[in-house]
Amino acid sequence: MKQDQILATYFIETPYPLEHAAQVLAGEQSTGTFVKVPGETDELKEKHGAKIIEIKPMESVPTPSLPGAHLPKGIAQPVFNRGEITVAFPYHNVGPSIPNLLATVAGNLYELREFSGLKLLDLQLPQGFMEKYQGPKFGIEGTRQLASVFGRPIIGTIVKPNIGLTPTELKTIVRELAMAGVDFIKDDEVNGNPPYFPLQERVKAVMQEIERAADQTGKKAMYAFNITGDIDELRRNHDLVAQAGGTCVMVSINSIGLAGVAHLRTYSDLPIHGHRNQWGAMTRCPALGMEFTAYQKLCRLAGVDHLHTNGLHNKFFESNESVVQSIKDCLSPLFGGMEVMPVLSSAQWAGVAPETYQQINSTDVIHIAGGGIMAHPDGISAGVKSMIQGWEAALQGKTVDDYAQTHPELQKAIEKFAK
Amino acid sequence: MKQDQILATYFIETPYPLEHAAQVLAGEQSTGTFVKVPGETDELKEKHGAKIIEIKPMESVPTPSLPGAHLPKGIAQPVFNRGEITVAFPYHNVGPSIPNLLATVAGNLYELREFSGLKLLDLQLPQGFMEKYQGPKFGIEGTRQLASVFGRPIIGTIVKPNIGLTPTELKTIVRELAMAGVDFIKDDEVNGNPPYFPLQERVKAVMQEIERAADQTGKKAMYAFNITGDIDELRRNHDLVAQAGGTCVMVSINSIGLAGVAHLRTYSDLPIHGHRNQWGAMTRCPALGMEFTAYQKLCRLAGVDHLHTNGLHNKFFESNESVVQSIKDCLSPLFGGMEVMPVLSSAQWAGVAPETYQQINSTDVIHIAGGGIMAHPDGISAGVKSMIQGWEAALQGKTVDDYAQTHPELQKAIEKFAK
Repeated sequence: MKQDQILATYFIETPYPLEHAAQVLAGEQSTGTFVKVPGETDELKEKHGAKIIEIKPMESVPTPSLPGAHLPKGIAQPVFNRGEITVAFPYHNVGPSIPNLLATVAGNLYELREFSGLKLLDLQLPQGFMEKYQGPKFGIEGTRQLASVFGRPIIGTIVKPNIGLTPTELKTIVRELAMAGVDFIKDDEVNGNPPYFPLQERVKAVMQEIERAADQTGKKAMYAFNITGDIDELRRNHDLVAQAGGTCVMVSINSIGLAGVAHLRTYSDLPIHGHRNQWGAMTRCPALGMEFTAYQKLCRLAGVDHLHTNGLHNKFFESNESVVQSIKDCLSPLFGGMEVMPVLSSAQWAGVAPETYQQINSTDVIHIAGGGIMAHPDGISAGVKSMIQGWEAALQGKTVDDYAQTHPELQKAIEKFAK
Repeated sequence: MKQDQILATYFIETPYPLEHAAQVLAGEQSTGTFVKVPGETDELKEKHGAKIIEIKPMESVPTPSLPGAHLPKGIAQPVFNRGEITVAFPYHNVGPSIPNLLATVAGNLYELREFSGLKLLDLQLPQGFMEKYQGPKFGIEGTRQLASVFGRPIIGTIVKPNIGLTPTELKTIVRELAMAGVDFIKDDEVNGNPPYFPLQERVKAVMQEIERAADQTGKKAMYAFNITGDIDELRRNHDLVAQAGGTCVMVSINSIGLAGVAHLRTYSDLPIHGHRNQWGAMTRCPALGMEFTAYQKLCRLAGVDHLHTNGLHNKFFESNESVVQSIKDCLSPLFGGMEVMPVLSSAQWAGVAPETYQQINSTDVIHIAGGGIMAHPDGISAGVKSMIQGWEAALQGKTVDDYAQTHPELQKAIEKFAK
């Protein structure tokens, strides 16, 4: 692609001709306003106006997806035209800045009444963005090194209940998980720095158990501490974790903003585990917001090393097809690299492994089972083993039922969790 | 309200009974997971579980607003129940943290498949949030002092074209605006720190003209420089503006995140002009995202002094009713104060003033006309005069047509802009 432009692809729906609506969008987000003003010369428009690169018409619909669209005058029976458009924004209007990029490619355009649907599908950014932000510091390989897990997914779990455990209860659970050989443990996103049990004390309690287990087993579990907080707190929280010997920090990306992630990336000595909660609000309406394909590029550029994608057969609204696409997105090169570990979670258990592997053809994922490990009938250790066995079956091309015949932990998992 | 809980009110739509869906939401966002795990004791749930405070049923609908909802088993003809629910989250789960609040009240819940619609309508927060964040440093009175405008709205404009002006062209426009006595000038949100004309040079060029005009007229226009950028840049950009004698900084709130705004608030010596671009993506779907009533509380708490609301008869999708509610929200007390100046913009001109005043019964607004000032047939100075005359008419209870009989600038504005 040309290095002097930013390409943004949108799904649009409009009661106007696609070409007209696209021009309104391009004008609003570059040189235009609702009325021609002095100074908007042809030369200025040529140098600074956004340009329509492509319009792919789709089938039109009889009813608008979103309210508030303004109908063209004199139209009795409107039709809402759908299409995919690609707009080129001059790079010199924006510069290598994620915050200013957002205001341009995802700003006021959502409010335009020429549209009854508008979703940002994808972005193509000039190299300057890579030079400014650099992307994940650890990525897949760095995470594998720190977790000492190779050739299979990193098997993880979430401390449950999400919130409310006492220090003693938390220590008991972490000890059992770490002694059971789990690769990865994470806080829940609702457990940040709660006054009843502050992060500082959680870090201390958890790392005591992680280190003690590591001394005994030789394996140090990676624990993603949820350090989400205000900008100054992020640094203090990160330092707390690093100084205690922790190997991962987690943030709610949409809570601290992409700018917050990029800031953390500038000083972080640990992989950044990116939780995408609040993402549903941005994407669940088919005709509004942003697709994960665009979003994950921004998250990776800003510097997350791991990114939540949901897992197959999750408890959320997301379809398997969408989950698979999201995982593939995270594993696809961005600026020739910047791959991050997709984090598969929500209602996961050992039996989901073969289908997951078949669909994504990769083991470069963090596969997280909360209940699927912690609620295993024979306890946490058996829960972890069942997950590893599920992936062994997947890698050997066997069904879990077959593999379970010689692997009792997997068998018990099937009995408990299979529908 | 009780100081030990956070109250969140949602619109919900669900194929399940409202009570069941509400319980799923409360569980997901506090102590629950998809399967009962050891440790989720009754005591823990009592202390840390979110509780349903109120359920107000509304009319049900035959089709789901959002895709992906999971239907209850054995239901042939589902009905989608609608209601308004209020959930109490224990404050000690979250603490006075906007980022962690978001992960709790607006996090993964949007993805739950028990819902075919979910929108956060309002929030009630404990005093601890006020003590932590403090809200606007300048607010309405501080802004009026800096702009030297009392007893009527602050009349403003946007430099147009949004982007692409050369330094010489920009200086010419700012000079004319400042000499014409405009109270307030702002950058467009797509004009941040563009490589072709960096913010540093823009600040220098603009402030030369503002100061020179102030020397001649005795009136110093407030200029909201768009300082949107990464976290470290915000500070540098703010200092640039402050050191050049500027009196306002503008940020795209959703570009830098509420955490970015709160961080800027800790050191800002200038009012923060909060632009809400990207907001449409959060709210335009009636069954998803967040209402402005909740959003503006977070923005104010984080520290904006001005907040965009759109104006009446704007070019966007938003109805006048919604705009009026948004303006009233900004002017309503939060923690007994924290009022901010609503910024009315988009397709505004002098003729909108009387209806606006009638609806909101306040002059504590920044009324911004881009084309409505810059494209006035007799030039910028006449454009500014017409806006002031529009508000004079409003305050005197006259129609603009009546008032225009003795005010030629208003008359010309009517001829140009009235439909």
